[in-house]
Amino acid sequence: MAANWDTVAIVGVGLIGGSIGLAVRQRGLARRVIGIGRHEARLAIALQAGAIDAYSTDLKSGVAEAQLTVICTPVDTIAGYARETARHCPPTALITDAGSTKGQIVDQLRHDWPAAGAAFVGSHPLAGSEKVGVEHADGELLVGRIVVITPTAATPEPARRQIERFWTQLGATVVAMSPADHDRAVAAISHLPHVIASLTAAMTPADYLPLAATGWLDTTRVAAGDVELWRQILFQNRPGVLYYLSEFAKVLHSFTQALEQQDEQAVVRILAAGKQRRDALAD
Amino acid sequence: MAANWDTVAIVGVGLIGGSIGLAVRQRGLARRVIGIGRHEARLAIALQAGAIDAYSTDLKSGVAEAQLTVICTPVDTIAGYARETARHCPPTALITDAGSTKGQIVDQLRHDWPAAGAAFVGSHPLAGSEKVGVEHADGELLVGRIVVITPTAATPEPARRQIERFWTQLGATVVAMSPADHDRAVAAISHLPHVIASLTAAMTPADYLPLAATGWLDTTRVAAGDVELWRQILFQNRPGVLYYLSEFAKVLHSFTQALEQQDEQAVVRILAAGKQRRDALAD
Repeated sequence: MAANWDTVAIVGVGLIGGSIGLAVRQRGLARRVIGIGRHEARLAIALQAGAIDAYSTDLKSGVAEAQLTVICTPVDTIAGYARETARHCPPTALITDAGSTKGQIVDQLRHDWPAAGAAFVGSHPLAGSEKVGVEHADGELLVGRIVVITPTAATPEPARRQIERFWTQLGATVVAMSPADHDRAVAAISHLPHVIASLTAAMTPADYLPLAATGWLDTTRVAAGDVELWRQILFQNRPGVLYYLSEFAKVLHSFTQALEQQDEQAVVRILAAGKQRRDALAD
Repeated sequence: MAANWDTVAIVGVGLIGGSIGLAVRQRGLARRVIGIGRHEARLAIALQAGAIDAYSTDLKSGVAEAQLTVICTPVDTIAGYARETARHCPPTALITDAGSTKGQIVDQLRHDWPAAGAAFVGSHPLAGSEKVGVEHADGELLVGRIVVITPTAATPEPARRQIERFWTQLGATVVAMSPADHDRAVAAISHLPHVIASLTAAMTPADYLPLAATGWLDTTRVAAGDVELWRQILFQNRPGVLYYLSEFAKVLHSFTQALEQQDEQAVVRILAAGKQRRDALAD
């Protein structure tokens, strides 16, 4: 099969960027994958892991021949790297990202985009992990996962189609949403659970940790995620996260009251609602 | 190796009871394991699964020759079955259980125990699962897990030693605690996380479920647990659960306020506390 792309650049070759690089290389979708990052030692590990064919610590030269650049850095830095990429990549190139938030990023880029630059289409592969680093990268990470793309009215149709095809070829199912709809949805399905897991872990008395079994371990697993990455995500999606935090406070209050008043029916009703939602999905 | 026990009886041959039966049989710890339950069809499945050697729907005859009876039924029924077992088993026999709460059970039995009856030592294997039924039983379930035993001042020392030895031979590490200390600890490390997982699942808008990735799936996994089993556990351990629910409400409020006020340091402090607790344990 002929490669779809000559050169694909990945800015930030960690767990997600590394997994995308591995997948592109394993599936022969590009002639070469260039990794871009700040730390040469980390890039050398990515090269050795087979996630990239070459690397550069200079974004300008790294993206110079890239028809597609995927920005996989912490969310606060994505818009900046996207703009810089647009200034230095081929004028017909495409740029996308892998950030967990979309509203602020798409908005910033809409208001300040190099006129002659490439097209940007926001993406969010729903395939996170509490682990970090290219050491945990996996070329099959996106298989069977969903990638949300957030084209806007200004997105050229061919750009949208190519980005959609890119993720599909990595094994994912693509869903298009507005940046605002995306952020609201992930506030409920990802960012709130992260906060709840963190709070549950944070309040557990250390003395009791030796008694932790699968219940505690599962419920708190994502609390091991990188603190600064999550601080950025929660601040970028502050309104959505605050909305669901207040919804959570309400259901917490209802449940507490039901248990306090020994209202068996109300306790059962809430537990059953949770079970019904959870049973709707496997694993 | 000679079997340690002639006859071991298991009352309630579901996931836990079935796993104990499998482990006893696989390790040759008893000449025979008798399963006792209400539903003959379920007991026949347990027999076929190799979890028991024989079964009875009549507790009286089922425990008549059992030197050890392990009661693995929902917590509200444990004290009743333990008392009935004590009336019909050999007078030198031992009785233990696998219930997730200990205070009420041990208290009920202390105040109303057949004078000539066998000795009861409360146990709680910390190896739950959201799954139910002997179909999910696993002879290795207890390997590397902790079993809390809750002997009291009235517990004969040989009884305590034999129960400790029983769990150790199934691969578990035994920790002795008072029933009250046990209930306080599991309120924090097991019962609160269960409620939090249920609430998180219950409040997730159904429309967003297709976007669920590992974060939501992990954080809500235990919400799939049996509603009535958990209703009983939460009511038996009501004071402990209510205490940690109010502690959770406090940290939820602090975090919400920090995010509302864009207090980066406070948000980072809470996320880092959660990460530190979670990183203390593997998986």
